[in-house]
Amino acid sequence: MTVKQLGMPELVAACTDLGVRGVGLWREPVHAHGLEYTAGLVRDAGLTVTSLCRGGFLTATDPHARVAAIDDNRAAIDEAAALGTHVLVLVSGGLPPGSRDLTGARERIADALAELAPYAAERDVRLAVEPLHPMFASDRCVVSTLTQALDLAERFPAEQVGVCVDTYHIWWDDQAPAQIARAGRGGRIAAFQLADWTTPLPEGVLNGRGQIGDGAVDMREWRGYVEAAGYEGPIEVELFNDVLWARDGREVLAETVRRYVEHAA
Amino acid sequence: MTVKQLGMPELVAACTDLGVRGVGLWREPVHAHGLEYTAGLVRDAGLTVTSLCRGGFLTATDPHARVAAIDDNRAAIDEAAALGTHVLVLVSGGLPPGSRDLTGARERIADALAELAPYAAERDVRLAVEPLHPMFASDRCVVSTLTQALDLAERFPAEQVGVCVDTYHIWWDDQAPAQIARAGRGGRIAAFQLADWTTPLPEGVLNGRGQIGDGAVDMREWRGYVEAAGYEGPIEVELFNDVLWARDGREVLAETVRRYVEHAA
Repeated sequence: MTVKQLGMPELVAACTDLGVRGVGLWREPVHAHGLEYTAGLVRDAGLTVTSLCRGGFLTATDPHARVAAIDDNRAAIDEAAALGTHVLVLVSGGLPPGSRDLTGARERIADALAELAPYAAERDVRLAVEPLHPMFASDRCVVSTLTQALDLAERFPAEQVGVCVDTYHIWWDDQAPAQIARAGRGGRIAAFQLADWTTPLPEGVLNGRGQIGDGAVDMREWRGYVEAAGYEGPIEVELFNDVLWARDGREVLAETVRRYVEHAA
Repeated sequence: MTVKQLGMPELVAACTDLGVRGVGLWREPVHAHGLEYTAGLVRDAGLTVTSLCRGGFLTATDPHARVAAIDDNRAAIDEAAALGTHVLVLVSGGLPPGSRDLTGARERIADALAELAPYAAERDVRLAVEPLHPMFASDRCVVSTLTQALDLAERFPAEQVGVCVDTYHIWWDDQAPAQIARAGRGGRIAAFQLADWTTPLPEGVLNGRGQIGDGAVDMREWRGYVEAAGYEGPIEVELFNDVLWARDGREVLAETVRRYVEHAA
């Protein structure tokens, strides 16, 4: 998604050219290019699919919406398996229309995980609960902190449900470093993503994630926490940014690699 | 600020007409109308000034900026005393330009409170540290949770430094109810403010606070927490909202009173 302006073949070629050996994919572009085609493309290029984004949106109270969400998440799990990745990132969902019940919404996520986690495990896919920044709590994700994500994940076996640690969402939280350690002790860190925090936030706040090094987040500090917690998996850079999307995608990817080296490596 | 389109005489008249017996003031309109004039106006109308907003912005590293901030906060304390309110709300400040050091910024707030709290206490004014929503952590307030605000406040006597509980900033936080109880046990709840959480957030996210009842916050639930913690002070409604500001101020104030009765009383 960092370079969603690139088609799948261009993305894979750009990764290869730049020495990027893994890529996190989103479902929409995978669907647009075709699942089997995409799986073959990345496999033939020797690229690892580090994760698939995203399942989730598991907070509906309407029974039909709930069944549809579970079905869609099963499909996402199947897609992850077909792409050869072992991580499906979950954005859990916001409050249903008119609801003010955060606690109930969080409990419905747990119910859904109970249905989905064994299905995923059978396909060698682990669900990664991602806390989203509290500014998304009402409309996108009622799981707002790493503490809450771990409280959810720890109801299930570690090999079935982990968490996604994304600097953009947790950088402000002084409890997050200790929660990363907790996640590490439990073998729960399923994914680690970087994005920087820049202001002013754009309208709707979704597409304002900053390029590495442009903002308030000390990338090496957070990488240090995650590595001290025993994480040895891939590090993804996930930027949603209208300004970056308007630029040449290969140039943005090259810049992202440079910024990673400068600020995180 | 909820009806900043009203001049001070119109505001005081509207409060009187609607049976609103207290008003929280902001420094800028007080300055614009004159401190002594405003103090006389509210006093003559029998209105209580429930709080003055805002002091703070105490995170500068530059020595000159730091001295200027302390001086400005002393002036704010003097103004609070002149207006007859016992509460000065503090928005603590964000990261200095180029800084990524949240911990250091939080520590500088504590240093500043140590200078300001005795000065305020001598004037019968209590400093109210307000946690702001984490979306303001970089540019406005590095104190993002009630937990952090209390960690700061509790370094000082309760009669000198309390906290401001604002639903808009803490509604997403499942630890906030317990922190309100903690604040109550320590006699630290200096102010209680209501605003609702609505989306999409506007560009810059500052002026999108929802009218009571329009959003995701259960006002009675939060009022219940605060009252269970022993708080018996005024309840303020503080909305920053471009749409509300564009309307007739008296109409907005009347609507706010109705919404308060419907959703919070």
